[in-house]
Parts: sequence; C-alpha cells; structure tokens
Amino acid sequence: MPVNLTAPDPSRLFPVAGVRIGVAEAGVRKLGRKDLTVLLLDEGAAVGGVFTQNRFCAAPVQICRERLTAGQAIRAIVVNTGNANAGTGEDGLRRARETCDALAGLLKIAPEQVLPFSTGVIMEPLPVDRIVAGLPAAIADAQAGHWARAAEGIMTTDTVPKAFSAKAQVGGAEITVTGISKGAGMIRPNMATMLGFLATDARVDAGLMHQLALELAEGSFNRVTIDGDTSTNDSFVVIATHQAANTPVSRLDSPEGQALKAALLGVARQLAQAIVRDGEGATKFITVHVEGGHNAAECRQVAYAIAHSPLVKTAFFASDPNLGRILAAVGYAGIADLDQTRIDLHLDDVHVAERGGRRPDYREEDGQRVMKQAEITVRVGLGRGSASDTVWTCDLSHDYVSINADYRS
Amino acid sequence: MPVNLTAPDPSRLFPVAGVRIGVAEAGVRKLGRKDLTVLLLDEGAAVGGVFTQNRFCAAPVQICRERLTAGQAIRAIVVNTGNANAGTGEDGLRRARETCDALAGLLKIAPEQVLPFSTGVIMEPLPVDRIVAGLPAAIADAQAGHWARAAEGIMTTDTVPKAFSAKAQVGGAEITVTGISKGAGMIRPNMATMLGFLATDARVDAGLMHQLALELAEGSFNRVTIDGDTSTNDSFVVIATHQAANTPVSRLDSPEGQALKAALLGVARQLAQAIVRDGEGATKFITVHVEGGHNAAECRQVAYAIAHSPLVKTAFFASDPNLGRILAAVGYAGIADLDQTRIDLHLDDVHVAERGGRRPDYREEDGQRVMKQAEITVRVGLGRGSASDTVWTCDLSHDYVSINADYRS
Repeated sequence: MPVNLTAPDPSRLFPVAGVRIGVAEAGVRKLGRKDLTVLLLDEGAAVGGVFTQNRFCAAPVQICRERLTAGQAIRAIVVNTGNANAGTGEDGLRRARETCDALAGLLKIAPEQVLPFSTGVIMEPLPVDRIVAGLPAAIADAQAGHWARAAEGIMTTDTVPKAFSAKAQVGGAEITVTGISKGAGMIRPNMATMLGFLATDARVDAGLMHQLALELAEGSFNRVTIDGDTSTNDSFVVIATHQAANTPVSRLDSPEGQALKAALLGVARQLAQAIVRDGEGATKFITVHVEGGHNAAECRQVAYAIAHSPLVKTAFFASDPNLGRILAAVGYAGIADLDQTRIDLHLDDVHVAERGGRRPDYREEDGQRVMKQAEITVRVGLGRGSASDTVWTCDLSHDYVSINADYRS
Repeated sequence: MPVNLTAPDPSRLFPVAGVRIGVAEAGVRKLGRKDLTVLLLDEGAAVGGVFTQNRFCAAPVQICRERLTAGQAIRAIVVNTGNANAGTGEDGLRRARETCDALAGLLKIAPEQVLPFSTGVIMEPLPVDRIVAGLPAAIADAQAGHWARAAEGIMTTDTVPKAFSAKAQVGGAEITVTGISKGAGMIRPNMATMLGFLATDARVDAGLMHQLALELAEGSFNRVTIDGDTSTNDSFVVIATHQAANTPVSRLDSPEGQALKAALLGVARQLAQAIVRDGEGATKFITVHVEGGHNAAECRQVAYAIAHSPLVKTAFFASDPNLGRILAAVGYAGIADLDQTRIDLHLDDVHVAERGGRRPDYREEDGQRVMKQAEITVRVGLGRGSASDTVWTCDLSHDYVSINADYRS
C-alpha cells in the first residue's frame, strides 16, 4: 500500500501544448499490459536530461546521452517497460537504435531526433520486433490529454501511476508543468530517477535545458532512496515546448528563471517523493534531515547512511523506537573526525538524544507514538557547522523481500 | 536455520593453558539466560585488539582501546549481552568502569587490567548492579574447558554458538588455538566483528599483539557482511598466554610468525564465516570474489557493493538467477572509470556474462541450478588489472525482516 499516495485524477493533469502522448500494448514481457509509450513533441521543443551514474548504464541511456550532447532537436521519446536493455553489450545498442529508427520512419523525422528509454529486467535481449510492431498503435493513440495513461504505461513494480501538474506565472504569462515518473525498487538515483519526464510549455533557451535538468534532479530525484541500488537506467528528462506566452527564459538566475525553476521543482519533488511513497513494500514515508554539518555533502552522506541501514528501516517497519540504530548509522557514515559527544537526535518533535546519549527526559512512549505514524521526520544534528541536507526514504518490510524474491517468477 | 553450521562439540574445543572461562546468569535484559562471561588470564598473557571504526563506538570499546594502547597487562575480560552500552554518553563510560572495578576487586588485580565488552540493545543504561551481582558466580564457574559455554554466553540473536579450535606446529612446539565469536545482525565489521575472542598458548612478544590482531581481522572479520551495518561494539581480541614451549615469536614475518599467523587465521576465518552462516535470516552462504582490479581496495569496494545490494540478496533468497542485479551493483560500486565492456561474471562454474553482456551460450537453467545451492561463489572480473579480493555474505530473507522488526519486543 503506497503511503499517502493515490492514482492521479486525469482531469487534474493539465495538457502541455506541444506534447502528445500515446500508449500501446506491445507484449514486451507479458501480454495485455500497456508497456509501450511515446511522447511526440512539436517542432521547437527544447530537451535536457540527466542519467544514471551507474557505470553499467543501459544501452538506451548511452544513446540518449549521445543525442542530447550532440544537441539534436528531439521530436519523440519512446519508452518500453518489461526489459531494461541493460547488460546487453553491443547487441543492446543495436536493438535500441532499431527501435528509434522504426519510430523515426513512421514519424518522418531523423532517427537522431528520437530518445529511447527502457525499464524492466536486466540482461535479457530487448524484443525489438514486438516493440516496433506496437509503434503504429502507440502513435495512433497520441493525444495531449493522455498524461495519466502515460504514467500507467511506464509502470513496472509501481502499484500506483505517478503524475503531477501545476500552473505558475513565469515571465508575464501563465505556464503549465506536467510530469510523470515510475520506479519502486532499485532506487537510489544518482543524477536522475529510474524514469521521470517533466514537460512545460514555457519558452526556455535550449542551451539551459541540461543545467535545468541537473538542478531539478539535485533537488528532487537525487534525494530519494528506497534500497540504495542505483539503477542502470535512471533517466530524468525535462521538455520545454516554447508554446506559452512568457518572456523567454535566458538565464536560470533571472526572476523568470527562478519562477520557472520553482514551478518545475515543485512537480519534480512530488514525482520523486511519489516514488518513495510507492517504494516496494513501503509502509512509511521517512524524511531524514541532517543539519549542523561542515558542508551539505557530509550531511547527505549521513542522511544516506541512515536511509540505507536495513536495521533502521526494519525498525520503522516495526514502529519500534529502537533509535540507537540511527546513532549507529550516523557513526559509520564515514565522517572520520565526527565527535559523538556533539550528536543530537529528534524524531519529529521528540528530542531523543543530545551530546551523544539518550536524554534523561526521553520517554519510550513518546518515541513509540511518532514511530507509529505513516510519515516521520528524523532530524540529526552533527554539531560541527551550519550546513544541512535532506533525503527521503521508506521502511523495509516483508513485502520488499516478497516483491524482489518474486519479481521475475 | 544457519547455513552448514552446527553447535560446536565441546570435546573438540581444546583448552588453552592460561585461560579459564566462567559464565553466569545476571539477568541483564532477561532472566534465566547466560548473559555474563568472564575470561580469566594467567599472569604473563599478551593481548591485542582491534575495534569498530564506528564513530559512535560504545563505552566499553573506548575503555578497551585506552587500556590496550597504554600497554596494560590484561588479566580479565568481562562480557555482557543484552545491552550494548552504546549511545550512553559519559554515564555509559562510568558504568563500564564500575563493572571493571568490581571484577578487579574480586580478583585482586588493578581495574586497568580488565577489558569490558558489551553487546545488545543500543542507547539504554547498562544495569551495572545486576552485572556486578553476577560476577562472583561467573568467577566460581571458571574452568579451562568452558569454551563452548563461553560461546553460548556471548550470544544475542545468534542461533548457534560459534567456537573453533586448532593445533599447529610453531617454532618447534605444538601450540593450541581456540576462539569464539558472536554476531548475526548489524554486521559489517570494520576492523573487527561484533565480538571475537581468539586465544593461543603460544609465546608471542607482547609488542606484536596489536599488529597481529589487525592482520588477522583483515583476513577474516573484515571480510564478512550481513547487512552493511557496522556495529558500535565490534571488538576482536587475540590472547597469547605464553604457556607453550615454542620459540618465542618476535617477528610476524619470521617462519614461526608465519606459522602462528596461519594457525590463528584458520580459526579466525572459521569464526568470521560462522557469523555469516548464522546471519539473521540467512539461507545461503555467498562468497563474492572480485578479480582483475587495479588494486585490492577497488575489488573490495565492488565486492561489498554486491554483498550489500538488497536486490542481489533477495534474488539469492529466491534462488532466482536475476543476475543483471549483480552487474548493476558492479556499475554503481563507485569506480568512476570502470569500462562495462570488460566485465565478466561467473556463478560458480557457470560463465554468465562477458564483455559486459550476457554470453550467447548462457542458459537460465544453468544459473538456476547454482542459485539453488546453499553455498554459492560469485566471481566478477573487472578486466583492468591483476588484484583481487573476497568478501563473504548471506542472502536477505523474510526472517531478516522478522528478526529485526521484533528484536526488542
């Protein structure tokens, strides 16, 4: 059961002028499942993306990087589920290119204008024939109002489709932002989530798109973790279709740049948090906030140590205030000169430990009360500076084991 | 159920001249449980130890470090289970010292000649009165033949006591080595295991003991992981009682030093592997061997990424040859210039992947056959050098979650 997350209401997802979406059943891995999604972009759209830092990155990730770096005018995105096309060597690259070539042929654009995305099982050959056979149906399905369908079309072990939308004032005009994401396991994005697509009709200089994608990922997808497993396929793409009436954004630090970034970040963060809320087996949504560090990097390092600790995660699952496990994770996070006598720990409003030891007035029933909540904030003070950072994660339950022990069977 | 591990046969554990062991029920956390163990050392014993790198190290760890660094002539070791005396601040140090003072008084030795060890729940006050009250019974119980009792006395979530013994020829005489260990969760030792005690009657220069402990830990306890959680209390102690007839070992790189180290390492490795075999919820014993690296450190880094991946561990639990998860872990292990097209993967004798992709002749049923075994070796080739390293771990099962969700309740 996802934590405070329900399927999107299609009527509350705003279409983005310049983007049409189509979904089809290609039978990639299973029959009767929406597993092929295309996003068709009008001429003039600018696209930026960030991708997994996993050195074993998937074939489609390699192709996306190549095409975005070359500054291709992207006109189409194709996403399949059921197969990640990762760990597939040269043959995998060939199959990803074949998919793009086929879509380009149908749309009468150049193959380099297509970005491919795959998600699913690793190290199995991509069934490119079935995907190519499904493309005409996906194209025929394409409509501007199909965002909820797309959110469903890119799901794998997700239990709920993830889509959010917003409107904002940017550069003297109203702009629209709508995005989708997917992912529930193998989630510890490092530069991007498993798959996230964010579109706006705003006018933005094409040269800013890569930096924009980077900054948005840093504030959203790069701050969530489910199991610490950085995927081979993590991809986060930002599309600006240039169809709104705003003053074009030519710098991200301008007033209109800041307004645009805030609007996009709001949706990106909802999409990223939705992945945690629907984390495999998740029963709790945990915010880990670390403050008082020398710099944000060390705060993040401590936050991830806590967020990845199986012992901390199972204690949250059990609603057991076994909070020494959090202190232990702080201690092994890798900060060589950490002084344990300065560490402070809060669980929501409950002050659990100070100067490295349990507070005399801490009562187990107070910790217990917070641990029973569906949403919990862990706040750790390092007592050595003024930097802070935040990471979002979930607990580790029996269902995580069941889901991952059964995923392919 | 531990993996190929049964309780030791007391008759096959050799007493070590100069060490007597006593166990008592002190009611630290639960009544009717052997939870207090003392090791009494004859005058003349040399002791070395290595301890957790967790910055949140427990009070007893801080005291042990202090006393060993000061070169105290150690005459007694006291171990309680049920309470780790970690995350307890100044008050914790005071309580650990009170325990030592009481034991020293009973034995008529100096308090600085006692090393304290605690294991159990973190961040709760040590019930020092109950421990002190239990000391006379533990001393009265002391006998040279009580190693199996000691292995039982230091257990927490362990399901099987862990003790091994060996005899070897060193420096012209037969020497005896016997050791015990405990630990089943919060196990990713970094300098030592949760608790490991290894004793020999050999004559060894006292000045070598620290280095000897370090080198033994590197080849044994520092190569195992269950959940990646480095404990606050990891401690590994080596005792040499100087009662055998061997030529005294004055250098570790001498022939007798090498022979001694080999004999001790054999037992230390059995003790360390026993912890993995009895890992919380473990159903499989996994050896992760990484070769072809620039240096051993990067091989170890990759091996730990594999050994800590919840997705890899659940696949082992399910006997599911979802081996792309191993490649993904190799990819995110943090080697920035890793070339995925050189990666090679074997599962026991089955060659799964080469040059970063699945081998054309790899058949899923071959992977399946190996995955069903209780003991499995994963062999990864990095294709960039000649260094290698090995780590031992276990799978991640429903029982791990159950045990850690229920540990305190």
